[in-house]
Parts: sequence; structure tokens; C-alpha cells
Amino acid sequence: MTENNTIGIIGHGNVGKHLTIALHSSKAKDIVKVYNRSIVPGPLQVKGVPYSQDLKSVANVRILIVCVKDEAIIEMLERIEDIVSPETIVCHCSGSIPSTVIKPYFENYGVFYPLQTFSSNKDVDYSEIPFFITGGNSYSEEALRYLASKISRRVDIISDDQRVSMHIAAIFACNYVNAMYSISHKLCKDFNISFDNLKPLIYETADKIKTLNPAEAQTGPAIRRDWDIIYKHEDFLENYDSNIRAIYREMADYITKFI
Amino acid sequence: MTENNTIGIIGHGNVGKHLTIALHSSKAKDIVKVYNRSIVPGPLQVKGVPYSQDLKSVANVRILIVCVKDEAIIEMLERIEDIVSPETIVCHCSGSIPSTVIKPYFENYGVFYPLQTFSSNKDVDYSEIPFFITGGNSYSEEALRYLASKISRRVDIISDDQRVSMHIAAIFACNYVNAMYSISHKLCKDFNISFDNLKPLIYETADKIKTLNPAEAQTGPAIRRDWDIIYKHEDFLENYDSNIRAIYREMADYITKFI
Repeated sequence: MTENNTIGIIGHGNVGKHLTIALHSSKAKDIVKVYNRSIVPGPLQVKGVPYSQDLKSVANVRILIVCVKDEAIIEMLERIEDIVSPETIVCHCSGSIPSTVIKPYFENYGVFYPLQTFSSNKDVDYSEIPFFITGGNSYSEEALRYLASKISRRVDIISDDQRVSMHIAAIFACNYVNAMYSISHKLCKDFNISFDNLKPLIYETADKIKTLNPAEAQTGPAIRRDWDIIYKHEDFLENYDSNIRAIYREMADYITKFI
Repeated sequence: MTENNTIGIIGHGNVGKHLTIALHSSKAKDIVKVYNRSIVPGPLQVKGVPYSQDLKSVANVRILIVCVKDEAIIEMLERIEDIVSPETIVCHCSGSIPSTVIKPYFENYGVFYPLQTFSSNKDVDYSEIPFFITGGNSYSEEALRYLASKISRRVDIISDDQRVSMHIAAIFACNYVNAMYSISHKLCKDFNISFDNLKPLIYETADKIKTLNPAEAQTGPAIRRDWDIIYKHEDFLENYDSNIRAIYREMADYITKFI
């Protein structure tokens, strides 16, 4: 038998800690228990939450959230298989690991995925973070959806494929966007121009997609099919950095062909 | 002899029109004259500015700003060579064409480059737009710098190479960033996920570089060297869109090697 309203969290890294805070401070008064393999120092603990280094402490929780690194999920499932109640809903928080990796170990399983880069030293408004739920059965799906709704007002049910595609979409829209900022910053630095000059344009670019579909907002030589300029820039970059040149051309090709 | 405080603008496209508005409304009370090859309809004219389809109308201006498409600059210079006073300072507004293309035609030349995507139907605070000046001699440089300072409080002198590199930097930070948004949008659409879910992350990504160097702000699987995830995403994208897969990998490689 599992204990009602009891949530176990395995791992007190960035995501684990944020989920502990969010669930412990939610109005639902769930009892949150945290397992971590090493002692969590007092200053990193969430006040009022019991911490343990013994997996038995989370053996009978109703929902168990595995917040370990992607590559450690399977190993953790193997460890908890014979410790945790077979009725417990076991889920992980990964954008790219299917929910079904849990199936061989637990009947009730799913994914509890917050779409947000949690930074350690920044207050987060959890109610604004989109949560995406995948459930191996309708009981798990509904329980995880309800749990997420206690934290956030933006909860959706999605499939494993949808979650992977959204993770990849986020990598393009955030990680790769930032890499573009980084290339731009390098060019400015190497040619002794202040990157600050570009910031108004950068903010305008992000701002535009508030109202426009990105394809409609596209500007620049590639969307104008201005090959004269594109070739000039390629020549310029060849003498500067061939890797950046390759990305310049790859993006120009993509834009001319597909946007 | 040229006429003091008289500015000619060739072309009434997007940039030409914005410069006409900005210069005509500046406190300096310069006289702005506009040449356009076709009649500019009344509603598109700037009130109080004389328009002409005869290049002779701008023959004796002190500064002549050629606001035509990059590929039309040389042809225009050939046309005005024998019409415009040899004392006139002739400049273009292109990010990627060297100032020196004007040298065979006019002794006093330069570039007058506003770093901004002017949209036609949006009010612009010209005083915030960075202007970059290149001058073929110190007389031209100083006159163009002074003219820009009447519009904007952000004016810098740069070389032709610096201007090209800044234009390329802007293409990465804006055009290619928007292309990343577009890829992300396509993924969301094709997998039936709302792109709105990604917008908070997108704004946070742009916001972060207000205080952090982009290289320090980099997150995601590539900067963590998480090849398990990268290969998984590559497999997923191979079955979806091989062009997007190629960009995914190219960016992952760049980030792992150079950020």
C-alpha cells in the first residue's frame, strides 16, 4: 500500500531541488520526501522536508519522481525495483528518454517534464512553467497531471515523441539561438566592435515573434536570395573562421530553401 | 560649389524614407532633397521635402546619400558621376559594400550605415539607432559623423572590414536566430505542440545576455557533451527532416568544439 499525498523525489540536483520547493510549497500540502545518495548540506535543504540516504524512505510514496541524470535513470530503476511498492507511480523528468524505459520495472509509470532551464540562483515563478505529462496508463497520467496542476497553471498531456520533438525544438530556440549570439559576440570581439551595438536588434528579433510567425518575421540576405552578399560574406569568413563560414552557408541554404 | 546644409537622398525605399524622416525632422534644419526614379505617391512623401525624378535636383548638395539596393550602387554612381558636383560627399548605406567602390567616381566619399532593420509601419526612435561611419578622407568622415550625430546619440567611426564583420554578426544574432525560431516552430507545428510553450524560454535566452557573455550563458546537451542525447536527437531527426538534422549536428559540433 502506498501513502496518500506522499511524493518521493530521488536526487537533489537542480531539477530535484526545484521540484521539492515547488511541491512542498504548493497549497496541496503533499508530504514530500527526498532521497539523495549523499548527505544534502543544511543550506541546500528545503525546510520542513525530510532527507534520507536510504531508498527505503521513499518505498511507499504514491508518486516517485526520479530526478537523476538521463544516463543514470535505468540504473536507478534497477536499484528501486525491489524496494519501492509495485503500486507506486514512478516517473522521470527527462525530455529525451521515453516513458517506456520504466515499464519493465513498474506498472504505473510516466514522465513529469517541466520545460524550463532552472538556474540554481534565481527565483522561479513555478506557476508559469509549462509541465508536460506522459502516462503509461490512464491512472498514472491522471495522477501526474493532477500533481503538475498543483504547481503550474500550464499542464499538457503529450506522447513520448511529442516530448522529444519539443525538447529538440527548445534546443533550437534556446541553446542554438544562444550559440548564434556567441558567434556574433566572437565576431564583434575579434573586430573590435562592441556587442552592445547588436543588443537592440537582438531584443527586437525575440520581440517580433510575439505577434509574427517566425517564417513571416525572417529578414536578411538569405530570405532576399541576395547571393552577391552571401558569397561576399562567405569569402570574408573563409579568411576568418572556416567553421563559422560553414554555419553561415548552411543557414543561408536552409533559409533560401525552406523558409 | 555645393550648397551648405543640403542633403540629397537617392531612393525612397525603406532606408531612404527613414533617413529622410530622420534628417528632415532633426533640429539641425538641414534641407533634404529626395530623388526617386519613379513618382513618389503623396501618402509616401515626407511633408515639406521636395521630391524629384531628375538627378540634377541633387547635383549640388553637400552630402549625397545613395539609398539604393546593393547591386544598383555602381550603376547609380556611373549615372551621377557627371551630374553631381565633384565636391559633394557621396556615400551609400550598405553593410557589406566597401566605401571604396565610390572612390573611382568621387573624391569625397564614405558610408553612412544605420544598424537597424527598419520596418515600414513602425515608429522608430532614431536617436537610439547605432550609426556607423566610414570616410574616404577625414573631411568626409567628419562631415558624415556630424550628420549622423544630428540623428542619433550612438555614432561610431569604423573601417570597411569592421562594418562587414558587424553586418555578419547581425546576420547571426538576428536573421539566423530567427531561422532557429522558425525550425523550432516547424517542429512544434508538425508534432502538434503549441509554440507558445517555448516563448518564455526564448525571452529568457535573449534576456540572459543582458548580463552574461553568451559563451557563459550556453546550456543544453552539446555544452554538457551529452552525446547520448545528441545521437538520440539525430536519430529522431533523421526520420523527420534531414536538413534540420544536419543543422542540429553542425551546431552541436560547433558548441562542443568552440564554446
